[in-house]
Amino acid sequence: MDPFVVIGGDAAGLSAASKAKREQPERDVVVFERGTWVSYAHCGMPYYVKGEVDSLADLLSLTPAEVRERDIDLRREHEVVDVDTDRGTVTVEGPEGSLEQPYGHLLVATGAHATTDPIEGFDLSGSFTMHSMDAAAAVRAFLTPPDEPVRGADIEYVDAERVAAFAGREPPETAAIVGGGYVGVEMAEAFAAHGLDIHLFQRPDRLLPPFGEDVAEVVADELREEGVELHLSTEVAAIEGDGEVEAVRANGTTHDVDIAVVGIGVRPNTNLLTDTPVECGTSGAVVVDEFGETTVEGVYAAGDCSESRHVVTGESDWVPLGLTANREGRAVGATVAGAPMPVGGIAGTAVVKAFEQGCGRTGILDHERARDEGFEPVSETITAGSRSGYYPGGAETTVTLCADRESGRLLGGSLVGTDRAAIRIDTVATALEAGMTVGELERSDLAYAPPFSPVWDPVLVAAKVLSGEL
Amino acid sequence: MDPFVVIGGDAAGLSAASKAKREQPERDVVVFERGTWVSYAHCGMPYYVKGEVDSLADLLSLTPAEVRERDIDLRREHEVVDVDTDRGTVTVEGPEGSLEQPYGHLLVATGAHATTDPIEGFDLSGSFTMHSMDAAAAVRAFLTPPDEPVRGADIEYVDAERVAAFAGREPPETAAIVGGGYVGVEMAEAFAAHGLDIHLFQRPDRLLPPFGEDVAEVVADELREEGVELHLSTEVAAIEGDGEVEAVRANGTTHDVDIAVVGIGVRPNTNLLTDTPVECGTSGAVVVDEFGETTVEGVYAAGDCSESRHVVTGESDWVPLGLTANREGRAVGATVAGAPMPVGGIAGTAVVKAFEQGCGRTGILDHERARDEGFEPVSETITAGSRSGYYPGGAETTVTLCADRESGRLLGGSLVGTDRAAIRIDTVATALEAGMTVGELERSDLAYAPPFSPVWDPVLVAAKVLSGEL
Repeated sequence: MDPFVVIGGDAAGLSAASKAKREQPERDVVVFERGTWVSYAHCGMPYYVKGEVDSLADLLSLTPAEVRERDIDLRREHEVVDVDTDRGTVTVEGPEGSLEQPYGHLLVATGAHATTDPIEGFDLSGSFTMHSMDAAAAVRAFLTPPDEPVRGADIEYVDAERVAAFAGREPPETAAIVGGGYVGVEMAEAFAAHGLDIHLFQRPDRLLPPFGEDVAEVVADELREEGVELHLSTEVAAIEGDGEVEAVRANGTTHDVDIAVVGIGVRPNTNLLTDTPVECGTSGAVVVDEFGETTVEGVYAAGDCSESRHVVTGESDWVPLGLTANREGRAVGATVAGAPMPVGGIAGTAVVKAFEQGCGRTGILDHERARDEGFEPVSETITAGSRSGYYPGGAETTVTLCADRESGRLLGGSLVGTDRAAIRIDTVATALEAGMTVGELERSDLAYAPPFSPVWDPVLVAAKVLSGEL
Repeated sequence: MDPFVVIGGDAAGLSAASKAKREQPERDVVVFERGTWVSYAHCGMPYYVKGEVDSLADLLSLTPAEVRERDIDLRREHEVVDVDTDRGTVTVEGPEGSLEQPYGHLLVATGAHATTDPIEGFDLSGSFTMHSMDAAAAVRAFLTPPDEPVRGADIEYVDAERVAAFAGREPPETAAIVGGGYVGVEMAEAFAAHGLDIHLFQRPDRLLPPFGEDVAEVVADELREEGVELHLSTEVAAIEGDGEVEAVRANGTTHDVDIAVVGIGVRPNTNLLTDTPVECGTSGAVVVDEFGETTVEGVYAAGDCSESRHVVTGESDWVPLGLTANREGRAVGATVAGAPMPVGGIAGTAVVKAFEQGCGRTGILDHERARDEGFEPVSETITAGSRSGYYPGGAETTVTLCADRESGRLLGGSLVGTDRAAIRIDTVATALEAGMTVGELERSDLAYAPPFSPVWDPVLVAAKVLSGEL
């Protein structure tokens, strides 16, 4: 049988390759990765920049050597430039030229890229997206004074030239963060740790829009308290400078800055499939079935380049996140090895740390979206203690739950607080996964002991209040 | 209509009274409480003894004055001595003698009592159960040197004479804790904070039996590291002394101690119902339907004196815990006020702190019990990080999941660890509540971000491993 060919050597691709090899060791598995890095923790990069994580190496889930130990034929710096689903081959450009590779099964795990449109001037030196290890290394080098060594960037396949260039420059004193999503909020924390003056520009009127207004408000207060200057409802038109970043222009005003990080969204890497019969959804990501198979038999997609079934709406949706990539990749690996495993759904569950605030969200919180999906949304927000009031260490926890008025079905929720708030979102996510009603959640036998939770956990308090509104 | 009469002024009773008054303000609600204390946090008492909670007053959820502000007719030191379900009356002994009170609806919320059987010598001064505020006050007084004031025990209705007696004695230096359940483990932490030498005696061969072997092992190691001398598989036959506790006799050996705390279990307070047609289960607790109504129409039971429906087995079961009492009481209050509300089920979800270890459990972990209920149990235990490996602050988290081999249905789980382990049991509890299979849990879209969880949360890792065994 022709090999199982994987395009992309990150979370989804290598999860699939590893699982397939484990299930069916005799079959060849070939992974083409166009870059030099494989299987690294994107989500850890801000903490490396911050200095909380010592080395880029700590962010590698698997080194290329470990991948080869699994008997996976990993080819880095090999870019798949064409997919021919009729013939069952891919065309690959590598250091030794072009080659054609037949496949028995194909997995498209090409990921996503950070967009910088429509911001002008992103090509100036000192502008970054936080979407590659080389960028993380360069930012850390930039933040390091010229007379100090750059810590943790000495990995053999890092872009050493770029690191050296930034290591030689005077560290930035003022930063522009363009975008108030995960990257923006996490990079604010990272830059603050280095003592930078920070301007954060956000086009919408609030931070972290998918987390809802209540989380956004708490996070905005937190960032302001930490000295971050927030510019909400403010669109950055251009990054300006003479070869190097010197300013950003936003809503007609120019702000002097020395570094700019852009985190305004990602787009799926699916250009490769444009001329194939593999269908993409309105998001631009690949549409797949419950086993991750695309509209072309034998061709699968997983991770940031593919859509998934949303557990609340049942519809195909695109929410590129780390666990999903790992889970989908693993399932596809099992399936192509002859042990079919569903890829599972998504609830859009996400958590993010904003300085000391932990934030979580899952499901559908936005009423307009809920109505579009045919629901009649009702939301309630409560603030409750995270532990028994008399027990030390507790903190206010704000919970929002959203449900459908007629069925009582839970649609989504968010949490924010400094004491184990984010992790509590898993309770709500599990309830969504099971299609529970608010009443069922309200009556759930959750844990109570003074050091951990009040008698009524904040999630239960929210469920009680929302239940009373239905 | 005759009033809604409640027997017992603690969590279930006052939750019911408050809810009924809120729903139907014009109806009289009478609560008879045989003691002087109402609505206090049992679970907080060890932390008052430890000194982490300053005052007993902090443990009061509602003061008698607050109860009266809710227009509830609260009668403390009134003991209901007879229930006549034919006539719809209760006979009450109070400071002014006996009275007969007719009821429209009756709620039995008499709670449970700590058993000391079959231990001889419990009547010696210096022997305690941790089941009353007066006992907590007396233990704290005993631990306080005679020349220091007893902190936080100056509440008007405390047993001041008992407090004064113990306040005058030399503090104990060596403690016997009889029983290695919640009370035993929490009191070990409390006594250790006061520098006592501690012997903990446990008749079974492990601590916290309902939490399973894996949690028990971690907790035993933790207690030993904290200097607690564990005597497992050791039965205390007697507490010995001349008027005051001087020793305990266990497995034929005598250990000199100055104080003894017995926490070997609780029994429901249902003697009052012996001569009524209200049925009790094999546990001795009252059998109720989904609205908390007993076998006699108009008579309800809630809290530690009543059974509940177990969400895994569907059978009536007795697990007396705080949230259940509050939830059942509240539901009965709504129901008798004309707004029927189910009392909900129980999963036996519980959390306990053992020094720095947080422990959680839910559902059915014990294989013998699972087989008795008609399941074919399979369990797996894993240890995984609580955060991404490279992110600071993480800790090993041990998770056990148990499922039915044939259906794949999740039956129960436990967790232990020092970093937000206990709270994660709510994910498993919610999955049980929804009747999820291990596969469904494995594919759940739980939260991931380096500061909060690894890509695969420890619960998901356990689900993956168990799923592979089914």
